Amino acid sequence: MSSPFQVVVLGSGAAVPTSHRAPSSQYIVCNNRHLLIDCGEGTQTQMRKYGVHFQKISHIFISHLHGDHYFGLIGLLSTMNLLGRNQGIVIYGPAPLESILTAQFEAGMSKMSFNLKFIPLASSEKELILEDTHLKVFAFPLKHRIQTFGFLIEEKSSVLKLDLAAIKKAGIKQEHYRLLKQAKDVSLIDGTTIHYTDFTLPSLPPLKYAYCSDTAPFKELSLHVSDATVLYHEATFTNEHKDRAKKTCHSTAEQAASAALKLGVKKLYIGHFSSRYPTCEVHLSEATAIFPNTIIVEDGMKIIVK
Amino acid sequence: MSSPFQVVVLGSGAAVPTSHRAPSSQYIVCNNRHLLIDCGEGTQTQMRKYGVHFQKISHIFISHLHGDHYFGLIGLLSTMNLLGRNQGIVIYGPAPLESILTAQFEAGMSKMSFNLKFIPLASSEKELILEDTHLKVFAFPLKHRIQTFGFLIEEKSSVLKLDLAAIKKAGIKQEHYRLLKQAKDVSLIDGTTIHYTDFTLPSLPPLKYAYCSDTAPFKELSLHVSDATVLYHEATFTNEHKDRAKKTCHSTAEQAASAALKLGVKKLYIGHFSSRYPTCEVHLSEATAIFPNTIIVEDGMKIIVK
Repeated sequence: MSSPFQVVVLGSGAAVPTSHRAPSSQYIVCNNRHLLIDCGEGTQTQMRKYGVHFQKISHIFISHLHGDHYFGLIGLLSTMNLLGRNQGIVIYGPAPLESILTAQFEAGMSKMSFNLKFIPLASSEKELILEDTHLKVFAFPLKHRIQTFGFLIEEKSSVLKLDLAAIKKAGIKQEHYRLLKQAKDVSLIDGTTIHYTDFTLPSLPPLKYAYCSDTAPFKELSLHVSDATVLYHEATFTNEHKDRAKKTCHSTAEQAASAALKLGVKKLYIGHFSSRYPTCEVHLSEATAIFPNTIIVEDGMKIIVK
Repeated sequence: MSSPFQVVVLGSGAAVPTSHRAPSSQYIVCNNRHLLIDCGEGTQTQMRKYGVHFQKISHIFISHLHGDHYFGLIGLLSTMNLLGRNQGIVIYGPAPLESILTAQFEAGMSKMSFNLKFIPLASSEKELILEDTHLKVFAFPLKHRIQTFGFLIEEKSSVLKLDLAAIKKAGIKQEHYRLLKQAKDVSLIDGTTIHYTDFTLPSLPPLKYAYCSDTAPFKELSLHVSDATVLYHEATFTNEHKDRAKKTCHSTAEQAASAALKLGVKKLYIGHFSSRYPTCEVHLSEATAIFPNTIIVEDGMKIIVK
């Protein structure tokens, strides 16, 4: 049985870490795939704190090369190595990241115990960067001071749900359930066929999680994540510092909420709060005035995508 | 009035950080100079936890390029920059560190608010790398898998202590104290001279703090730090893992204690404990059997050099 599509927020702060908000990182479990988006300094320590098994992670996605989104990556990879990891890992990120990692491994003369594959992100359009039997991951450009990518993670339903009423009425035997759930017809020994479409429910639209950090508001975002179920959007500033948000290519909580409203997502999570704010009450009130179903993320929070 | 010569242990663990031991870093205050030796991942967070004012740091010394000794440096420098530091900083470390830092600043397109001067360490002998009116710092080679340096910090007494008995007996006026303490003779209007040597106490030998991590035991160490007051020496392993210590060019607690005994230091502090040990009781008993005045360091511990 697979666990629900979920996100563990490992860091919800912005550039300057505080005692209660680590820099950006999110651990994602989707259809038994374990992914990491961004990896600010101290992410490996946050993983220990929140019980995340980092050796399960198969793919890491780095949004951009501001330090609060990747300074913890080299430390995490080093620890994976020291603990004898042998399963390969794939890292997606802006091209300069590869040589930064390589220089650090070379300086330490580290012998790697596992294969590290780096895939540079470069597209100016939404792009499918990973697909397997479990999920799809898309990268798309955000609007920030340096090249920055958002990510959309889409689960693939591996099995259909049985239409139990129809099954009971027709007296279908339990031994056929497995094939029917796999969208396969069953041929019986008497020559008749049980069509899976008659005994399974229509698939629900796939659940999708969109990660947008860091970014100024921009209208093309709707092209990339119009069908997201849950949106995580940065909200570095409140309206009081709207000018500062514009200057630094960040968003206010109100702008994040406006994006969520326009996209028609079910739920909005906001984070990446500037360390200048002792609490996020103003962020919350400014966002909920536009999009009521907004949640302030905290380090350690678990988001269920449903 | 200057604060005592002291060291705040910011990280006492080895390569893999644990919940109670961060990787190596020590903050040093000597004659009002503020220094940092090593800067493992999360050092800036440890500084916040233990009330260290990192903007006061003027010089940073990196022993070697294994990640647990420097992965937190880029994050610390970035935070100094984000908070608008304008005082310059000097970093000493193995040569490849400079390009690693530069690549990361360039990738983030960070505009620096302060001047960063990098001084590569390369000597195979003990070398005076910093001297001012307050202190001297020497670097010396250690024996590790990659090029690694130890550091010796020596305070310079800025003022002499007055011989109060002699002052009182001769009736020296208080207005002359300042010059006498600065080792200057005072010429009086009547043509007589007050010689500072008559009214001040002989200088005590300067206090010296030696930092040796990471290293295997090696006999030339005594050439470098024979006159240290306090020695910090790595003790990654216990005797149970002596072979592992040898293979990885680390020391056992017993070997650290043997070095302290040979060097004739007053006090030994040991740290850099492998995460395999839930407690350090065995380290302590094996070290004190050789050198009784041994202390196990903990994160947040303050060492007074006296």
